[in-house]
Amino acid sequence: MRLVEVEHVVALVADRGLETVLADLVDHIEADFRRWDEFDKSPRFASHSPGGVIELMPAADARAFGFKYVNGHPGNQAAGLQTVTGFGVLADVATGYPYLIAEMTLMTAMRTAAMSVLAARHLARPDARSMALIGLGAQSEFQAVAFHALLGIEELVVYDVDPAATDKFRRNLDARDIRVRVAASAPEATEGADIITTATADKRHATIVSANMVGAGVHLNAIGGDCPGKTELQPAILDRASVFVEYLPQTRIEGEIQQMPADFPTTELWRVIAGEAPGRRHRDEVTLFDSVGFAIEDFSTLRYLAEATAAPHLHREVDLLAQPADPRDLFGVLGRLPVANHA
Amino acid sequence: MRLVEVEHVVALVADRGLETVLADLVDHIEADFRRWDEFDKSPRFASHSPGGVIELMPAADARAFGFKYVNGHPGNQAAGLQTVTGFGVLADVATGYPYLIAEMTLMTAMRTAAMSVLAARHLARPDARSMALIGLGAQSEFQAVAFHALLGIEELVVYDVDPAATDKFRRNLDARDIRVRVAASAPEATEGADIITTATADKRHATIVSANMVGAGVHLNAIGGDCPGKTELQPAILDRASVFVEYLPQTRIEGEIQQMPADFPTTELWRVIAGEAPGRRHRDEVTLFDSVGFAIEDFSTLRYLAEATAAPHLHREVDLLAQPADPRDLFGVLGRLPVANHA
Repeated sequence: MRLVEVEHVVALVADRGLETVLADLVDHIEADFRRWDEFDKSPRFASHSPGGVIELMPAADARAFGFKYVNGHPGNQAAGLQTVTGFGVLADVATGYPYLIAEMTLMTAMRTAAMSVLAARHLARPDARSMALIGLGAQSEFQAVAFHALLGIEELVVYDVDPAATDKFRRNLDARDIRVRVAASAPEATEGADIITTATADKRHATIVSANMVGAGVHLNAIGGDCPGKTELQPAILDRASVFVEYLPQTRIEGEIQQMPADFPTTELWRVIAGEAPGRRHRDEVTLFDSVGFAIEDFSTLRYLAEATAAPHLHREVDLLAQPADPRDLFGVLGRLPVANHA
Repeated sequence: MRLVEVEHVVALVADRGLETVLADLVDHIEADFRRWDEFDKSPRFASHSPGGVIELMPAADARAFGFKYVNGHPGNQAAGLQTVTGFGVLADVATGYPYLIAEMTLMTAMRTAAMSVLAARHLARPDARSMALIGLGAQSEFQAVAFHALLGIEELVVYDVDPAATDKFRRNLDARDIRVRVAASAPEATEGADIITTATADKRHATIVSANMVGAGVHLNAIGGDCPGKTELQPAILDRASVFVEYLPQTRIEGEIQQMPADFPTTELWRVIAGEAPGRRHRDEVTLFDSVGFAIEDFSTLRYLAEATAAPHLHREVDLLAQPADPRDLFGVLGRLPVANHA
């Protein structure tokens, strides 16, 4: 059984380059979205507490069962802890044996950026070259690198309420050939942008982007509105935009469309990717990817890791299964133990 | 973050003795059953496939969230694989950070035996000294050691359809001072027994024990009837016995009582342990613990492991969380990577 820790993911990214890993994640998610109907899509299990939520997100096809453990604790950051951490598991459906446990803290950030790029390929104008990026938290650099490397974004105009976040963002992208301009406000950042990405951590109904900031033909990539009570866009934007979602039953509860009536029209993105529904229909259309993160994306990511981490320096072998030669002889695994009376 | 592998559990049992570990598990389960109402008892998540089932069993109190991954694949044994394997996780409810991943293949066998002893303490006659044990598979030796060490059972009369299983059982208990007699049939094994434990792996409605085999005052410890379509007892026994269950909504579906009408009377065992309901009421009463395994027992087991495996040789430190100094700087964890074009 293979354990992929944070250090192994860092080594994988060092070996292959972040851009290549992101490109491979896009390919894996795209392949799985194309075969959407093959997946067992269960609702996630959520355990709520005053401080946040712990979720188990399962997804399975005929060969593999996967799930991700993920938490969301908005108060963590003030204590110097991450808001979101996670790990994932893949198991063999035929035997029930798990074969991969992997960190999904870094990988979730990468798969979220890969998913954004996959959506933008179908929804943004093909000649999009500039992106506004509002909210420079843990997800921001991954979005920046993914859109630059995989979608041809040449200029980023960025904004965060906290100058320290902006400094961190610039420092992290320093070594990369990405043009970054810092705006003094969100409206300034969005001015003239072909794509607007929002990735703020504010846990309430906030108006990060209002309708007057969104010009004709813009694609909105809304990452931060991802749980009940947390949205980033003014409802008037939703009325103007063609809205695309991952999995409607989940997005209704967690996405930007929680602000809208239950019959608000949307398109599930897999239908666009599979060629069953149109993506962007004309240059002036405003498109919105209302991203909340779905279990199949994590499944694709775990599937990628299972393929990519076979080399000995990219994982550690661990044993959680015992595997006695005679399966009925589990007791024998304990060996010949000293008998009794140890207390 | 701590990883407890099979080798660490073997070392723990070697250090403390199996009897002591079982006794500590009984104490931990008992303490948690006493505070039953403090637990968030969610239904388990199950993913069914032609070959078996994969389940996620969550349980949480105000401080810790736990879950167990467990599979059940009846066809595995023919392929030399275990029917049931598992691992468990504990996380801090306040931060959402997981802090323990532990093997639950060996530990589930131990906690099941500990749970059986805990039930028998309240349900068997105090002077019970003999036990029939029918089904000598992976669970059998754990039951034998637990009942001998913790309940004073002096003689075991055992039976399995497969002589090889009987040989394995005798070999494994060789070093221990437990009197074992091998019966030629299940009826012979149960004759005069104070306690009857059934732990067969047959996945269908089988009649391992029929009503004429159960004398007055016997306690039945039914381990093997633990999923829909799998039972071991003739329904007439249930009509005669006072039936005790772990968590009624689950046992209705998975336990022996799936053979009975929906209003069949039972008592949840936590009420007996908490002093809210009687256990055995008189010497001649037939009592039945209809055991299916419940998430709180796994929670108690993980809680025990978190306490017991602090020594360096009893776990391995692993990192699935990244934990950057600045929680917004997840990207910084990747270090200064070589830039692009690695493919």
